Amino acid sequence: MKLGIAIYPPKDIQDIANSFRKRYDPRYSLIAPHITIKEAFEVAEDQLPEIVQYLRQVAQDTEPIPLHIYKVSHFHPTNNVLYLAIKEEPRLTALHHKLHEPPLLKHEHKYPFVPHITIGQEMSDDELHDVYGRLRMKSFEFSFTATRFHLLYQLENETWTTYETFLLGQQG
Amino acid sequence: MKLGIAIYPPKDIQDIANSFRKRYDPRYSLIAPHITIKEAFEVAEDQLPEIVQYLRQVAQDTEPIPLHIYKVSHFHPTNNVLYLAIKEEPRLTALHHKLHEPPLLKHEHKYPFVPHITIGQEMSDDELHDVYGRLRMKSFEFSFTATRFHLLYQLENETWTTYETFLLGQQG
Repeated sequence: MKLGIAIYPPKDIQDIANSFRKRYDPRYSLIAPHITIKEAFEVAEDQLPEIVQYLRQVAQDTEPIPLHIYKVSHFHPTNNVLYLAIKEEPRLTALHHKLHEPPLLKHEHKYPFVPHITIGQEMSDDELHDVYGRLRMKSFEFSFTATRFHLLYQLENETWTTYETFLLGQQG
Repeated sequence: MKLGIAIYPPKDIQDIANSFRKRYDPRYSLIAPHITIKEAFEVAEDQLPEIVQYLRQVAQDTEPIPLHIYKVSHFHPTNNVLYLAIKEEPRLTALHHKLHEPPLLKHEHKYPFVPHITIGQEMSDDELHDVYGRLRMKSFEFSFTATRFHLLYQLENETWTTYETFLLGQQG
């Protein structure tokens, strides 16, 4: 099965991201706006309990993480992806590392970790340029504290369902 | 904010449900296939911690629930909804009651609790009749054990995001 790990920003930020995604992201309906902390990876279903056990431990050992969205940016020319950029935060980077550390979770990164919320993808060069040109003039400043991450699995229609949420720190 | 509580069946059952939903359910892309155990209800955001606390207690006090899908059925003429019917299971009914008990969660039921997974809705009488006529000849028998439920919240675009999963029994 195909798994992924993500943080959902608060509802109001998801609503803002969706106002762009519905126009600029053809994959809009497959998942809610999110910060990917581990890209899609393939595991045998019987590895799931071990992964869950590890994620519980990681979550417990990780304090809630303050996150700050500070601008609109893009991955052009690598990828015509438009996104809300999140300030580098050592605790988020540390969490990302922990989710790639043990043998079970060692998967190749396609790209270096740049935390972001995608608001557009598969855009033409022209469209990306136009939209980015307009949005970069606006202020996108939002702060929130990530208190949990989600382990997701992908269905055949490419949508993602949450398998389990993991609360950061000793909240339980 | 608008909340709801649901159980997701295992991936293979979600995939089967989606094979019908993509044709017969215009609300297909808003949520993964699920069993609603508490219909959408409106709460003030500051009530969320108290609700979560209560749900944790309920989950801990509820053993995993064996569920059995046994046929295709429909709610016509009340509603042109086509669904996978789930055998009445006292532990599921008890969970449903607990999620409507305390003052905070006392909301009117629109309908009596008939556990089901919707696979079609907003169908015309003719379409419902045709599709049901074809599907009722087929066998739909699946068993699984519900080990968790999900607290969801609705975004402005009417999609649902998981807020937190609650594991049944002492699994944690």
